[in-house]
Amino acid sequence: MQKKKAPPRRRSGCPLNASVEMLGDRWSLLILRDMMLHGYQTFNEFLHSGEKIATNILADRLRRLESYGIISSQQDPADGRKMIYALTAKGMDLRPVLTEMVLWAARHEATGNQSLVRQMCTAKEELLAEAGKRWESKQGSLNS
Amino acid sequence: MQKKKAPPRRRSGCPLNASVEMLGDRWSLLILRDMMLHGYQTFNEFLHSGEKIATNILADRLRRLESYGIISSQQDPADGRKMIYALTAKGMDLRPVLTEMVLWAARHEATGNQSLVRQMCTAKEELLAEAGKRWESKQGSLNS
Repeated sequence: MQKKKAPPRRRSGCPLNASVEMLGDRWSLLILRDMMLHGYQTFNEFLHSGEKIATNILADRLRRLESYGIISSQQDPADGRKMIYALTAKGMDLRPVLTEMVLWAARHEATGNQSLVRQMCTAKEELLAEAGKRWESKQGSLNS
Repeated sequence: MQKKKAPPRRRSGCPLNASVEMLGDRWSLLILRDMMLHGYQTFNEFLHSGEKIATNILADRLRRLESYGIISSQQDPADGRKMIYALTAKGMDLRPVLTEMVLWAARHEATGNQSLVRQMCTAKEELLAEAGKRWESKQGSLNS
């Protein structure tokens, strides 16, 4: 029995191509950053993030990320009209990708958020482990 | 004196945003893969890669990657009508990003190219170092 889902007709079998077909746009990784580092979980929180994503694009990206199994959604128990979004294990596994993209841009471009960059440079592994722990404890409380 | 170029009006100062503004599309990283791992350097070689990029998109992406300083181009000394493309140091620095994207997809998706994936899993650092050495020796021969 095969554990992994058969790929949707992809342009090639290369794993890098699979990644860019899922994540190769200007928004998906920013939404994942907001979940990973800022703990955002609602549509409104993503909408008011620094890059000012448009509502239709945000709705589309959330739908796509969920269809790929990178995030999950559930109704907010406190307000049935709201959805709460969370990273899946597959989504959390994207931490090294995000980290390397941050470090690359910080090395080669004039960017802000230097405190995050310094943190990542000096304590990359620790930072990743910490985000992982926060996620695990959240999973625990969701399932309890 | 500031060494780094001022950013073109970006949506935010976050380094991850800088990365996705430059690389967040479905093709740029595949072109870099073809340069890094397959040693491709001409328009025709990129055009006939596995994912069958369209000529107009390829021309646009090469232009953009060059404008970001990720690749450079020069006339082929053997055929003045042809351009030869090469990774810059900034482009070579994207190796960890590509590697992490490959490893992520290989873990979570049914993809091909398993020999590359196994190589990357077992000898990630060595593989990266090797590509770096190939690039350095090419630089040496270009400048000699």
